[in-house]
Amino acid sequence: MTHRTTRCVVLDSYANGTALSESHFSLESKTLAPLAESQVLLQTLVLSPDPYMRGRMTGMDNFFLPQFELRAPLVGFGVARILESRNPAFTPGQLVHGSIEWAEMSNWGANLYVASLGSLELLDPQIKPHRRALDVLGITGLTAYFGALEVARPRRGETLLISGAAGSIGSIVGQIAKIRGARVIGLAGSDRKCAVLKEQLGFDAALNYRSASLEQQLRELMPTGPDIYFDNVGGPLTQMVMWQMQRPARVIECGQISTYDQDGGGWNLDIRPIHGQGLSWEGFTPVQFQEFFPAALAQLGYWLRSGKVIALETVINGFENAPRSLAGLFRGDNLGKMLLNVAD
Amino acid sequence: MTHRTTRCVVLDSYANGTALSESHFSLESKTLAPLAESQVLLQTLVLSPDPYMRGRMTGMDNFFLPQFELRAPLVGFGVARILESRNPAFTPGQLVHGSIEWAEMSNWGANLYVASLGSLELLDPQIKPHRRALDVLGITGLTAYFGALEVARPRRGETLLISGAAGSIGSIVGQIAKIRGARVIGLAGSDRKCAVLKEQLGFDAALNYRSASLEQQLRELMPTGPDIYFDNVGGPLTQMVMWQMQRPARVIECGQISTYDQDGGGWNLDIRPIHGQGLSWEGFTPVQFQEFFPAALAQLGYWLRSGKVIALETVINGFENAPRSLAGLFRGDNLGKMLLNVAD
Repeated sequence: MTHRTTRCVVLDSYANGTALSESHFSLESKTLAPLAESQVLLQTLVLSPDPYMRGRMTGMDNFFLPQFELRAPLVGFGVARILESRNPAFTPGQLVHGSIEWAEMSNWGANLYVASLGSLELLDPQIKPHRRALDVLGITGLTAYFGALEVARPRRGETLLISGAAGSIGSIVGQIAKIRGARVIGLAGSDRKCAVLKEQLGFDAALNYRSASLEQQLRELMPTGPDIYFDNVGGPLTQMVMWQMQRPARVIECGQISTYDQDGGGWNLDIRPIHGQGLSWEGFTPVQFQEFFPAALAQLGYWLRSGKVIALETVINGFENAPRSLAGLFRGDNLGKMLLNVAD
Repeated sequence: MTHRTTRCVVLDSYANGTALSESHFSLESKTLAPLAESQVLLQTLVLSPDPYMRGRMTGMDNFFLPQFELRAPLVGFGVARILESRNPAFTPGQLVHGSIEWAEMSNWGANLYVASLGSLELLDPQIKPHRRALDVLGITGLTAYFGALEVARPRRGETLLISGAAGSIGSIVGQIAKIRGARVIGLAGSDRKCAVLKEQLGFDAALNYRSASLEQQLRELMPTGPDIYFDNVGGPLTQMVMWQMQRPARVIECGQISTYDQDGGGWNLDIRPIHGQGLSWEGFTPVQFQEFFPAALAQLGYWLRSGKVIALETVINGFENAPRSLAGLFRGDNLGKMLLNVAD
């Protein structure tokens, strides 16, 4: 049995109260131990830089997930190929997905934090390309599906405003809301992103949130505010939107990405507009709907195949670009889902 | 026309990021100008120290109401008698209620901040004692009525947990929820308050939130958490409660009194339990239901007369105790509505 060497991405320092940047990470060499009983050797194909990972990089207790260990490989969702197996459930050549190390190769089966979403699973061969298991047909798509259909529940004719609309979840939520008959307006960080939302995804309108006249533009589009605000962003943008909403309008909170760099890791909200405008604010995580993942994945698969939902993606190639794929996610470098392609 | 002298309460300094105390106020003498056209001279009978006033004492922009001017008389809800009138709508001897100066006598009709709840109004002679216009039959009762019936909407058999349950609003919300068939559990700051909730108001249970075993007691009473949490308090107590709640449980936010001493005036919320537990969080102000005040006041009057709703009150006598009535409100000195009786 040979001792293999691989590269992995480690967190060099926590980023609390400061922007995450490439300098927080480094690529390191690692020698893999021989496979232990029940382990498999994985070749990483695609990794999924996800906003929730930021909460594991602050060094602060975040209530949801434990902090990443400094100088140890990051862990996140990914798609991989089985290279060797000492586990009867897996055979070399099979494709799998689950929580894996941010490494080109890794021994799976010990010491990995496994999210409650499950362990390593065989990839459904219908999922093509296989990176769809990390966006529309993965936790991203499931979050959008349940957020749109079980939490936001837009009625026909209601106006749904989405922040982070060109992001991984927002872009899917908007398309599902259109299928449901809502009027969908997106907020995104560049004119190019707005154009894609309107022209490729069929949004009714899209506004660049960096525009100085945003507040005025929102008032013109929605004189009494949106009926539903699907929020991926938080912070001052969300404050401003909420002051324009009127009871019984509702906010669906899916993420607060603009706050994660704050001291303490963010997730703080000034509730005065909720109080003053009589709004409701609803949070959720997809895990709450876990029993219904089969239905959701089947439906999302149907929508993908029929072209009713389009997968927007930004694929960065090359494992050496892993730090950029992570830091860039919080700068809005991505249009749709950020993905890191490691090997074909 | 004589020049009258009266006493008034002024704010000496703003209290931002620090507890409000008697030392922030002083009593001052004031000479009243002769009545101008359309003004009336009021003799103050009862004043209403209310939690929302704290937001006018921070020196910070609070979005809701302007800051009190330093060294000028405070303004708040009160009941008064017309002593003199140069306004055809009022006759000496009549009782009125509305936003008035914290003074033993005052000229009404100029320079008062008038809440959107209306101006000076004749007191309905059916309201007895007249201080009921400041609690069950005033904005306090209206807040409780709409908060309970239009926002919280407890269904028969649901468990409603109330923080600040022995306060002015909480004590009424609990009684209305009992009428609606809910199981009602109160959180209050002393064993005596808890006893009153159970023995006088018919709460199913009441817990002292200062108890070291509170979390355990809550779990025993509500193994899956409350269905509805009616929150008057906010802060760490609310955080703890929310972590025990399970989707689709809901929080009704009526006030956040434990946060008002914070730098910036409070109203900040750590939303992680809302996100993680999939809760909904709803805010409101009674003004949103203003069109329906007549129905609410008629219903509250019926409940009062029939004894189905009991007015809990803490009456402090003597204008010189005005600072204590205000500061004490934020120490929990009150059982039910805090009232300052100025004259009979």
